[in-house]
Amino acid sequence: MNSYQVTILGAGSWGTALATVLNKNGHNVKLWMRNEDQKENILKNRVNHAYLPDVLLSEKICPETNIKKALKNAEVIIIAIPTQQIREVLRENKSLFPENALIINVSKGIEKNTYFTISQIIKEELGSYDFCVVSGPSHAEEVAMKLPTTLVAASSRRILAEKAQNMLMNEYLRVYTNPDVTGVELAGALKNVIAFGAGVIDGIGYGDNAKAALMTRGITEMARLGSVMGSSLNTFAGLSGIGDLIVTCTSMHSRNRRAGILVGQGKSMNEALEEVGMVVEGVSTAQAVYELGKKYQIDLPITSAIYQVLYENKNVEEAVLHLMTRSKKNEMEEIVEYRPVEWDV
Amino acid sequence: MNSYQVTILGAGSWGTALATVLNKNGHNVKLWMRNEDQKENILKNRVNHAYLPDVLLSEKICPETNIKKALKNAEVIIIAIPTQQIREVLRENKSLFPENALIINVSKGIEKNTYFTISQIIKEELGSYDFCVVSGPSHAEEVAMKLPTTLVAASSRRILAEKAQNMLMNEYLRVYTNPDVTGVELAGALKNVIAFGAGVIDGIGYGDNAKAALMTRGITEMARLGSVMGSSLNTFAGLSGIGDLIVTCTSMHSRNRRAGILVGQGKSMNEALEEVGMVVEGVSTAQAVYELGKKYQIDLPITSAIYQVLYENKNVEEAVLHLMTRSKKNEMEEIVEYRPVEWDV
Repeated sequence: MNSYQVTILGAGSWGTALATVLNKNGHNVKLWMRNEDQKENILKNRVNHAYLPDVLLSEKICPETNIKKALKNAEVIIIAIPTQQIREVLRENKSLFPENALIINVSKGIEKNTYFTISQIIKEELGSYDFCVVSGPSHAEEVAMKLPTTLVAASSRRILAEKAQNMLMNEYLRVYTNPDVTGVELAGALKNVIAFGAGVIDGIGYGDNAKAALMTRGITEMARLGSVMGSSLNTFAGLSGIGDLIVTCTSMHSRNRRAGILVGQGKSMNEALEEVGMVVEGVSTAQAVYELGKKYQIDLPITSAIYQVLYENKNVEEAVLHLMTRSKKNEMEEIVEYRPVEWDV
Repeated sequence: MNSYQVTILGAGSWGTALATVLNKNGHNVKLWMRNEDQKENILKNRVNHAYLPDVLLSEKICPETNIKKALKNAEVIIIAIPTQQIREVLRENKSLFPENALIINVSKGIEKNTYFTISQIIKEELGSYDFCVVSGPSHAEEVAMKLPTTLVAASSRRILAEKAQNMLMNEYLRVYTNPDVTGVELAGALKNVIAFGAGVIDGIGYGDNAKAALMTRGITEMARLGSVMGSSLNTFAGLSGIGDLIVTCTSMHSRNRRAGILVGQGKSMNEALEEVGMVVEGVSTAQAVYELGKKYQIDLPITSAIYQVLYENKNVEEAVLHLMTRSKKNEMEEIVEYRPVEWDV
């Protein structure tokens, strides 16, 4: 197996967990972070206390705060930075990215205001790079504990998706390739809106039937938007869509779901955000999806309901009643067009 | 709205819950059961103690043990009997089924030995009847409590699916139509195999990542089998597929999941079945799916693993390791063919 010089930008729980995987798989791993104390702590104790306190990091994983040193000679660069910070980091350090590096994005989200996916941000800031997105149902803690996990590696070029697959795959991490970059990116971002909605259902005190309906119809709705944006319905039915949504909706660690629970219990958006105390991607993504729906003239009843609850103070039970009593539908009718996505090369 | 004479065959929790819905929606409901005590109890206390103890049944719902009286003048007949008993009930009472009745099946399963779906059993025993299948993520208890729930009504004839939709739909029960009878029937039966597998993952002590992967890849595998049997992949990604699977896998009420947990903890199939003490559909369905996979020459890795664990005493951790380390795959490659299912009429 080839061994690569890999630089991971971002030492949160997911970046750190991937560092353990890549180190185990025989690659040379640099882990870039901004915080000097965090780096010293890793060097001294081999633990990333703030994000993965229970996992011992190999001495071969090299923490680095100097991004110039981190990116020097990198053959593979993994982007594991919060979505809203990616553009700035790329713009400030553009000249440091080695020309032939493969860029693998593992962050999930849509940029505020532009509604760009992360590959679109990268393209705009860095120009044309070999690119791959990796996503799927993956609590970082479980990956770091070597519990069985599956991921999807998507690229428009088969060889790049397979390169990421080969780098990451081992006996506890199974990676599937997929040609549908847009679908995998959108699914990873949009599922946070549905996870928020599932939290609302829990917060109101509705049952498992309602939650399963919200998740299933929600992912169908996301697929409908994805379809007009050029992605495949089947990607949304796969690991990066419904798979990731299942993990998110069954976890109390999900900030999106927790914020939804609070709103379901009657709190306002601002009260919920204050209580969760951290970035809740689903709340801003709900607005992005709502706007994208208008732009592409797609009917998105669940997103609209969530938007109205969040931004127009609509009563949650009224919103659910409205969803339940809409005009009668055929389960298949909203499938705009079946569009298989093929490899470019 | 039209009001129909509806006879529900089977007074388990689901038959009884549907009786409450249909009564509320203005239909005349007879509920057939074999047990005389159960009938007397319902007449006296208006409660079905064994199956829905917390729900008061309207006096308009008429319990009946005489199947001849129950079926007389029925315009709509709902089949809510355990799968393995359906053929016998139909065969013994064939002459009592009014000719023009609409038969709606709400049971889920595949017949042992024949591997028939329920519509196939009905066709073989009764001949040609107006037919519809209703399925989806629906704990009976929650429907009886009027908590928001969604269902799918599938028929090859649009008008029949819409008749079932119109009969059942109200402000807490939302019904979608679907032309894919085979897909809805298979999804409802096959998800029990995956629910068993999800239980095994829980029993071993693997995490949420593994369970979400099993559910997502499992439903993809079921869709692959369904596809060669004439159904649509999208049905499996819908309410009767992944939706019902989500409800089943998040509930401790699921006997399939409970049996899986015991097997994951190291018990044998027989020990697990004995401890659960009731029919576990997923265990016999696993065998049916395994045989159907061989018949249609379809690769079903998860079903095969479950089959080997159940019937060939394969070690569960070895089975998972085998699944994780199979040859590298493209997430889309196993989609045999996209086949939209259309209404006959």
